Amino acid sequence: MTPTPTSLPDTPPILAFGAHPDDIEFGCGGVIAQETRAGRGAHFVVCSRGEAATHGQPGQRVAEAQRAAALLRATIEFVELDGDSHLEVRAAHAITLAGVLRRVRPGIVLAPSPVENQHPDHSRLGRLVCDAARLARFGGVRELTAAPPHGIAQLLFYALTREAEPGNISPVLIDHSRPEIVAAWVAAMEAHASQTSARNYVEVQLTRARLHGLGAAVEYATALFPADPLVFTSLSGLGRGARGF
Amino acid sequence: MTPTPTSLPDTPPILAFGAHPDDIEFGCGGVIAQETRAGRGAHFVVCSRGEAATHGQPGQRVAEAQRAAALLRATIEFVELDGDSHLEVRAAHAITLAGVLRRVRPGIVLAPSPVENQHPDHSRLGRLVCDAARLARFGGVRELTAAPPHGIAQLLFYALTREAEPGNISPVLIDHSRPEIVAAWVAAMEAHASQTSARNYVEVQLTRARLHGLGAAVEYATALFPADPLVFTSLSGLGRGARGF
Amino acid sequence: MTPTPTSLPDTPPILAFGAHPDDIEFGCGGVIAQETRAGRGAHFVVCSRGEAATHGQPGQRVAEAQRAAALLRATIEFVELDGDSHLEVRAAHAITLAGVLRRVRPGIVLAPSPVENQHPDHSRLGRLVCDAARLARFGGVRELTAAPPHGIAQLLFYALTREAEPGNISPVLIDHSRPEIVAAWVAAMEAHASQTSARNYVEVQLTRARLHGLGAAVEYATALFPADPLVFTSLSGLGRGARGF
Amino acid sequence: MTPTPTSLPDTPPILAFGAHPDDIEFGCGGVIAQETRAGRGAHFVVCSRGEAATHGQPGQRVAEAQRAAALLRATIEFVELDGDSHLEVRAAHAITLAGVLRRVRPGIVLAPSPVENQHPDHSRLGRLVCDAARLARFGGVRELTAAPPHGIAQLLFYALTREAEPGNISPVLIDHSRPEIVAAWVAAMEAHASQTSARNYVEVQLTRARLHGLGAAVEYATALFPADPLVFTSLSGLGRGARGF
Amino acid sequence: MTPTPTSLPDTPPILAFGAHPDDIEFGCGGVIAQETRAGRGAHFVVCSRGEAATHGQPGQRVAEAQRAAALLRATIEFVELDGDSHLEVRAAHAITLAGVLRRVRPGIVLAPSPVENQHPDHSRLGRLVCDAARLARFGGVRELTAAPPHGIAQLLFYALTREAEPGNISPVLIDHSRPEIVAAWVAAMEAHASQTSARNYVEVQLTRARLHGLGAAVEYATALFPADPLVFTSLSGLGRGARGF
Amino acid sequence: MTPTPTSLPDTPPILAFGAHPDDIEFGCGGVIAQETRAGRGAHFVVCSRGEAATHGQPGQRVAEAQRAAALLRATIEFVELDGDSHLEVRAAHAITLAGVLRRVRPGIVLAPSPVENQHPDHSRLGRLVCDAARLARFGGVRELTAAPPHGIAQLLFYALTREAEPGNISPVLIDHSRPEIVAAWVAAMEAHASQTSARNYVEVQLTRARLHGLGAAVEYATALFPADPLVFTSLSGLGRGARGF
Repeated sequence: MTPTPTSLPDTPPILAFGAHPDDIEFGCGGVIAQETRAGRGAHFVVCSRGEAATHGQPGQRVAEAQRAAALLRATIEFVELDGDSHLEVRAAHAITLAGVLRRVRPGIVLAPSPVENQHPDHSRLGRLVCDAARLARFGGVRELTAAPPHGIAQLLFYALTREAEPGNISPVLIDHSRPEIVAAWVAAMEAHASQTSARNYVEVQLTRARLHGLGAAVEYATALFPADPLVFTSLSGLGRGARGF
Repeated sequence: MTPTPTSLPDTPPILAFGAHPDDIEFGCGGVIAQETRAGRGAHFVVCSRGEAATHGQPGQRVAEAQRAAALLRATIEFVELDGDSHLEVRAAHAITLAGVLRRVRPGIVLAPSPVENQHPDHSRLGRLVCDAARLARFGGVRELTAAPPHGIAQLLFYALTREAEPGNISPVLIDHSRPEIVAAWVAAMEAHASQTSARNYVEVQLTRARLHGLGAAVEYATALFPADPLVFTSLSGLGRGARGF
Repeated sequence: MTPTPTSLPDTPPILAFGAHPDDIEFGCGGVIAQETRAGRGAHFVVCSRGEAATHGQPGQRVAEAQRAAALLRATIEFVELDGDSHLEVRAAHAITLAGVLRRVRPGIVLAPSPVENQHPDHSRLGRLVCDAARLARFGGVRELTAAPPHGIAQLLFYALTREAEPGNISPVLIDHSRPEIVAAWVAAMEAHASQTSARNYVEVQLTRARLHGLGAAVEYATALFPADPLVFTSLSGLGRGARGF
Repeated sequence: MTPTPTSLPDTPPILAFGAHPDDIEFGCGGVIAQETRAGRGAHFVVCSRGEAATHGQPGQRVAEAQRAAALLRATIEFVELDGDSHLEVRAAHAITLAGVLRRVRPGIVLAPSPVENQHPDHSRLGRLVCDAARLARFGGVRELTAAPPHGIAQLLFYALTREAEPGNISPVLIDHSRPEIVAAWVAAMEAHASQTSARNYVEVQLTRARLHGLGAAVEYATALFPADPLVFTSLSGLGRGARGF
Repeated sequence: MTPTPTSLPDTPPILAFGAHPDDIEFGCGGVIAQETRAGRGAHFVVCSRGEAATHGQPGQRVAEAQRAAALLRATIEFVELDGDSHLEVRAAHAITLAGVLRRVRPGIVLAPSPVENQHPDHSRLGRLVCDAARLARFGGVRELTAAPPHGIAQLLFYALTREAEPGNISPVLIDHSRPEIVAAWVAAMEAHASQTSARNYVEVQLTRARLHGLGAAVEYATALFPADPLVFTSLSGLGRGARGF
Repeated sequence: MTPTPTSLPDTPPILAFGAHPDDIEFGCGGVIAQETRAGRGAHFVVCSRGEAATHGQPGQRVAEAQRAAALLRATIEFVELDGDSHLEVRAAHAITLAGVLRRVRPGIVLAPSPVENQHPDHSRLGRLVCDAARLARFGGVRELTAAPPHGIAQLLFYALTREAEPGNISPVLIDHSRPEIVAAWVAAMEAHASQTSARNYVEVQLTRARLHGLGAAVEYATALFPADPLVFTSLSGLGRGARGF
């Protein structure tokens, strides 16, 4: 019954967490669109139905999220923790999310930044996913015995606003400039019509991505923040630095 | 007359700067050994003859550096700036080094960290190379008209001691665990016999590399610090994170 | 029944939060005294009765706080969360405080710094008020439907000790040097006789305010830490910088 | 012979420093346009003729700067220090700039951020102006006896790129959203045709200002970074915080 | 029934907290060995039985911890909070630990760093001990009336991995180079055979201690991080700085 | 001819550097008074004659410094570098100061903080002394062959204003509360009558020392900032932490 994302053979899927139905799309939808169009699987875990927002009812918001995920070619599921605007950092939640990690068994995991911004749920979910990625590896957690331990490849934080960009982690910039990628991203954001009709959220994200792109001498880029040092076996793997200006 | 490193066709060489004859080997020799054994060219620019050190005479130290470079399969040249222990951050020096960049036209550049540690020359050379990498791109610098402008791909800082590891840049860990790489690195460090006979410098670096390796679940790794955000076009390019412990 | 502070027509009141009966007075009483003497309304919300302190019984401490608030010309109410020395960061508390924000509808809000100092309740209340100021704006929080959403103008943190001064926020210094303001502040602090008879808390705060004053070339100043960037429409609004020494 | 900016009676002029002919316009031209249209005087001090740039000859660049200053209703002068791309942090330069401060006697001073970004001259000029603002106050500096000591009201740093925004100073956001202000700013940037024809510098700055504006719930804003804590005598002077999202 | 560590007359014992049965030994066992061999008492408080670990059953792990404590000449007790991998920062836990502090009445307290590393329990216990050390001093906490208030001399954080070393506290290095101390430390770590048979934890800690030792020009040293500034009455009390390289 | 401070047999003297004639007294005079009254020798090296100050002529200022040094029972010498307000960070200066270190052969060295504050000379001298302490150890610096290499025990920074207190080094607090020590310190500060008659510098320093004292539960304390980690062989050497409030 739980969705199983399809991916390239032998490529573990990407798993993205969001506190509200639109967080993943606004925070890293351009990256997701690019990955899925390259044949990698992506799965979204949304941890509330957005029921505390000023605009939009839960049912509408769930439908918007499902449509947006489809536009990004990702599967989606909803996990109830404490509810919108009520999220707390509890061990039980981290264990619940670790259970998701063991079930989906992703390579790369995307989560909101643990730095506080305009909504308290964002940073708390970031901390919970961080803990979950650790707990998923421990063999003796009694609630998690249904699936074998799983170690992810990378935990990358996305930031929904500039304030949430961690000051103590160097960003990596993901160039997703191709017009069809940008179009898919915008479509996924606009699928959240209950939100975008009231505020210029889409412009905020496009402006941020354009600014990161200008710094990297490309059209559009999203900054992601690796929770751990990147490991390479060759300097050529580092590509190039953002020395646009 | 100036040495021209050989590299894979169409692969720009790696260029490494050191303030003293042994800095490159001790700071990032394991990385260099791995790169050159993979067929990439490397060139060393050493900015003093180590004449202020407690041990070793300049002639001996130059010879040691030449031997170490050969062991790492790198070419080497010496550039006189202010002399050992006399280095200052001057525009003229940055321009001199920018001239080297335009001549060698490297992709990746390695320089000592601009964070102060036990020798004032280290951080100053780091700053000078940082400036040089910028000036090399400007078309109108009158002293640099002999060669066309050149933009490098990446500037990576290495740290000779833990104190010099920049606290505001996330490291990337370069795994160079293969026994023949470690052996080549150790041999290059031990080529500086005037230094290693008096102090346990080799142990310091091996201990640091082992500790970074343990963090990355490999044998030996060197931490490098990118001056600019890394740019990728796919999440799969990020490899995996150092989640060993 | 809940107190309603009086203010200048069309000027929203200042709302100050404290974890214990004396925190507001010791942390920003000089600022409050100056504001109320300029005709602005101020309201205090105290989140425990100080029942875990070494000195003073809850009844006495409440009476002291009421007297101190009167000396500062502020109204006061007590909100029970977890009790003195038992405060936790819970969503329910943030929602309770958001309800207070919707009722009082302040412009400027003062709260203890979210940086840990000698009492764990201080930083936790700071975080709760930070969350509350966000939740008060969201239209769909079910517990908050009794009053319409409210967006505050500013959230400013005060610090009860130097350790609690946030290192990552630039302070603004509020000059409150006029003798009658200093006198009112000292009187309000001394109203907490159960505390000041045992320790030199008043001297601590006067010394801090004098040191901030010396830096600003005035007699006494209190450092406040804005949670968000200040927005101005003219450089003349920035006044002058603290360049006393 | 040296230009004397006209200002409101009794209002000291704004003084802005730039390392190259276009730095002031690109870094804080929107703020300047708004200030001068409100009747305040502004004077620009440009410390090179841009002779090291890839595009544009010195004569052309000086003319562009003069035209841009006129569009911003500012007076302008050129001060020769070490020349473009050759600037060093020398006491003699700080004293030269202190002499300018004593002559112009500004209230608010704008200078490039002392944080390194893509051009080494920027941060060095920021440090020099910082020192100059201090030296201008000392009565005994022998080179400065031609004019009496002068203490400025504020030193504010502007950032030409996001990298140069100081991480250890909280920004203030200057809202300059009025269409005629934005138009004047764009015109002043475009007056530097030698630069804007080759790179999208104007878009970079408008994107940054739009992003800061979105954060402050206005159209366009520029972030400035006060060198010293701001001093206020009333909380109402702080205006409102940037809590747009 | 609760163990009472023996110490030098008039010397309060050292109290060390660990989240899991092996944390104290791996994090600061070398320091403990040296202190107890100098005649000072040490007591361990372990806050889980390691029941969530991949290797080792709770009964076995408790026995290993008891054996390790004996090798370090320390007494040991177990305190149940939320269980391994389930620890939360709750006021009730801080009060429980404050009760331990009042009972044992230590001078120096050792706790895991409050900086997150690979196990979420570590940093949470660090925060809880930090709070406990404060609450133990307050006279009115109703749950703590069984024993009089107690103020500790120092709270020192230890780090189980390099990531957990706090970046905002300067370390002090404890030189514990004597061979018999190193041997006792290694024996205590190896007493946790359930853990060391599966992973090279002992090597990690010896490598870290050797690296700190090389920096201090000694054989082995452990970095500890004081929660508060150190207070001295003479500069000679500061000993020497780590200027080995 | 060069002064040779007398000290306890086998105790190397303390060496303090100041950029201006009054810097040492204002920055760490209380510490010096306490050390010399305990029988340790102290020597002052002053690097200008204060000739750029608003108040006081060089001759008068030198005389004041000599009198203040005598009150603190320290010897004093003047070293000319670039002159007051003209100091630059040059290798030649660092070598000059290294020569002083080799001649005086101190244990503990005190220097102004390398963090910028209201006078640019302060931080530059701090950096120069930092470099000098390193160069003094290198055997091959040709200008330094007159005396054998010398390694100091500790480099401690003092801060003349709060802004200069380094944010990245944990302070140690030196308790110098005894009335006769405070009196000697005040007398030494007041010996600089040319400065204290015009500004309340003495009050600034006493207020700072009182605030540090209140934090440490003593009367007066000075915060010093060790350039390197402190090394201890016993936890008992750490004394107690500043947990006054």
